[in-house]
Amino acid sequence: MKADIGLIGLAVMGRNLVLNMNEHGFSVAVFNRTVSKVDEFLAGPAAGTSIVGVHSLAELVDALKKPRRVMLMVQAGAVVDSFIELLLPLLSAGDIIIDGGNSLFSDTNRRTRDLAGKGILFVGCGISGGEEGARRGPSIMPGGNSRAWPHVRGIFQAIAARVDGEPCCEWVGEEGSGHFVKMVHNGIEYGDMQLISEAYDFMGRGLGLAIGEIRSAFSRWNGGVLDSYLMEISADILGRRDDDGAPLVDKILDTAGQKGTGKWAAINALDLGVPLTIIGEAVSARCLSAMKDERRKAAAIFPSPVSPGADDVEGFVEAVRDGLYASKIISYAQGYTLMCRAAKEYGWQLNYGGIALMWRGGCIIRSAFLGNIKEAFERDPKLENLLFDDFFRDAILGAEGGWRRVVAKAAELGVPIPAFSSALAYFDGYRSERLPANLIQAQRDYFGAHTYERVDRPRGQFFHTDWIGKGR
Amino acid sequence: MKADIGLIGLAVMGRNLVLNMNEHGFSVAVFNRTVSKVDEFLAGPAAGTSIVGVHSLAELVDALKKPRRVMLMVQAGAVVDSFIELLLPLLSAGDIIIDGGNSLFSDTNRRTRDLAGKGILFVGCGISGGEEGARRGPSIMPGGNSRAWPHVRGIFQAIAARVDGEPCCEWVGEEGSGHFVKMVHNGIEYGDMQLISEAYDFMGRGLGLAIGEIRSAFSRWNGGVLDSYLMEISADILGRRDDDGAPLVDKILDTAGQKGTGKWAAINALDLGVPLTIIGEAVSARCLSAMKDERRKAAAIFPSPVSPGADDVEGFVEAVRDGLYASKIISYAQGYTLMCRAAKEYGWQLNYGGIALMWRGGCIIRSAFLGNIKEAFERDPKLENLLFDDFFRDAILGAEGGWRRVVAKAAELGVPIPAFSSALAYFDGYRSERLPANLIQAQRDYFGAHTYERVDRPRGQFFHTDWIGKGR
Repeated sequence: MKADIGLIGLAVMGRNLVLNMNEHGFSVAVFNRTVSKVDEFLAGPAAGTSIVGVHSLAELVDALKKPRRVMLMVQAGAVVDSFIELLLPLLSAGDIIIDGGNSLFSDTNRRTRDLAGKGILFVGCGISGGEEGARRGPSIMPGGNSRAWPHVRGIFQAIAARVDGEPCCEWVGEEGSGHFVKMVHNGIEYGDMQLISEAYDFMGRGLGLAIGEIRSAFSRWNGGVLDSYLMEISADILGRRDDDGAPLVDKILDTAGQKGTGKWAAINALDLGVPLTIIGEAVSARCLSAMKDERRKAAAIFPSPVSPGADDVEGFVEAVRDGLYASKIISYAQGYTLMCRAAKEYGWQLNYGGIALMWRGGCIIRSAFLGNIKEAFERDPKLENLLFDDFFRDAILGAEGGWRRVVAKAAELGVPIPAFSSALAYFDGYRSERLPANLIQAQRDYFGAHTYERVDRPRGQFFHTDWIGKGR
Repeated sequence: MKADIGLIGLAVMGRNLVLNMNEHGFSVAVFNRTVSKVDEFLAGPAAGTSIVGVHSLAELVDALKKPRRVMLMVQAGAVVDSFIELLLPLLSAGDIIIDGGNSLFSDTNRRTRDLAGKGILFVGCGISGGEEGARRGPSIMPGGNSRAWPHVRGIFQAIAARVDGEPCCEWVGEEGSGHFVKMVHNGIEYGDMQLISEAYDFMGRGLGLAIGEIRSAFSRWNGGVLDSYLMEISADILGRRDDDGAPLVDKILDTAGQKGTGKWAAINALDLGVPLTIIGEAVSARCLSAMKDERRKAAAIFPSPVSPGADDVEGFVEAVRDGLYASKIISYAQGYTLMCRAAKEYGWQLNYGGIALMWRGGCIIRSAFLGNIKEAFERDPKLENLLFDDFFRDAILGAEGGWRRVVAKAAELGVPIPAFSSALAYFDGYRSERLPANLIQAQRDYFGAHTYERVDRPRGQFFHTDWIGKGR
């Protein structure tokens, strides 16, 4: 009896995916570079299952049904290339290699093309949901060689999360598009986390609320339009007490780490010329949080402008919810704009509603909200911007007043909410028929003869003014 | 008689540099790929000078004193590499190639190393000041092989701008550091331009001022702490009338272009983990300005929240000046932080005061303000952040109130000032001893077991909580 799929890399994500596949009736052969991990896994979590352990890549390939399906759950980068190199002589035409790590999409573009030339079908697969998701049902975003899809669809859709009976796994598109969509997912995750942390900070340092009160607000919001996994765990976290009975969150150092995919999204957006400002601010906020010693020094020099508090604390709490909701809509709108631009730039056909469906369950950003996005793309598959959908237009119009109040109040109070305020500035720019870029074009023409277009002439006609000659 | 230096590339920057060198008594041989441009130049602007035209690279090299100095003023990228390739067989050990274009600093790193291995001294040289600067005295930022400096110093410092008798040209440092510093300069230029355009927009669309009134404010500010080339030309621009007598700036399309160096700075900052949020917002604002058709549609759906105007217009105009000044200080502080991090990362020794001196005259961002930065680094060459210098601390404290008022008012009015508000959010984050990144770390530990540090334990000890086990 040959196995349905082979998996390489028994760190926690790999182990949990294997257990998940096993539970859904698939037979899995597993290998790990440090082979003792194979034996530990079989003696431990995999004991009593039909999971097969092997001690070499040759054994692994030998243990698989044809076409062979080999899934890599290893560190992104050179390790992926080196395993592909080692597997190639062992595989036959039509076999499939799946990379389930957080690879850079441009690496996946290259690997898909290179391996297609060698008859191997490559799949680059974004997987989100953390350890728990991998075990119980993750969100899976596969892209690459579409000839592989019929061969992996059954396994992936079986182990993926389900919402209303639909699996959170669909074919994303060509080449590195699966990893691209995962990268955007992670960027949006950075944005969501930053927005929630700003809401927490504004209510705490700004309005003077106690942690229990903030927790109550989060729990309440989780029952409404902000219903999401990150809102839920944030409420959980704020309720957690340390051994001494004090809130654990107060004991945690305020220095956030990052693993790079949020940064990649921000860099890609700059490269493609798409504003992704909320995610950019979220990445920068993590960098700033790491500058703890400098911040301590600056705090001693620059006092807060006013004491915390507001006349209408309850009203402000509702305004924070509105601001969080509106900012989140803007962040997702920016993320979708980036995906549209990428599809054009890289020649991909992306299924935007399907992407929302994949994100609706299983992954870190899962939420009721993503159901609304899916519906928006069902109403109009070519929707240019989320804000042009009636549901989201009304949501923004309803939240706008509170959002503005919070951003204005934060500026007065001296509580930084860069993602809230960047989202509002983007919204106000987006709804501006006329922006002050005319002055920028005039400056560029003044010092660099870069020319400008005119509002009273057709696009594509360029004018230059001899500013210095006549202007002085 | 051999020439002091040879220059390749007779576009406007190259031509003007040659005329500038000639005027300062240096003999220059010139070449251009399209050789007819050489003859045109000699018959035109260079007529009656001692400038020598040549029609091949061999002739060019032959015309030069040893060690030969060949300066490239050609398109950045592959064209630079191809000219280096063509020059190599013609040059001897100890000869010097200078790249005066807007090259990516990492390309200059590579070229400096590669050419050192072949005995050629490479210099990557940032030049700012536009056409006019190139002709009358630019800011010149050379880096690369330091053995070249004694051979190019005389020419460069002679043709550079001067402020208080000091040339705006000093040796920057190793490898691509000259081009790196030019890249940061250009990023800061994007930030300055965006900040000025936001001030213009807030006063126009927000406060309801006429263009003449905004121009008066700009002219007045140019006599104070905001004294700068960009402020000066902005006032000039606002005073310029079209043929029909209406302000020309109103006829210019609000769609800003960009050539990429601002984007490079923002991308590099993300890569090095340094917040460069004002420049990031400035780059994104240009991208948003290009989405003119979408903006027109959005404007029809989302009306302005309130009518323009404020109770205390005059007070707000002064507050805009304060906000512009404070935001500019933050932008430069971020730029300097990026240079410090880059120096550490790439192993460069940078002279921070010298950089301010180079930027003080000749270039697009030249200003009185850069004299203040130079003085700050004279007071403390190891200054960790501009905000820790007494002058800038007092400047921020003096401007803070107005800055907050403008950011808050813009949120109410619906006028986007993303660079102003991003600068304020960064300042408020920087002066926060405690940021809400503790919640982000808790979230990361919750869903991904990424661990966290504690405020009551030494740095470097990592803790993990079993959130799910006990938390539900």
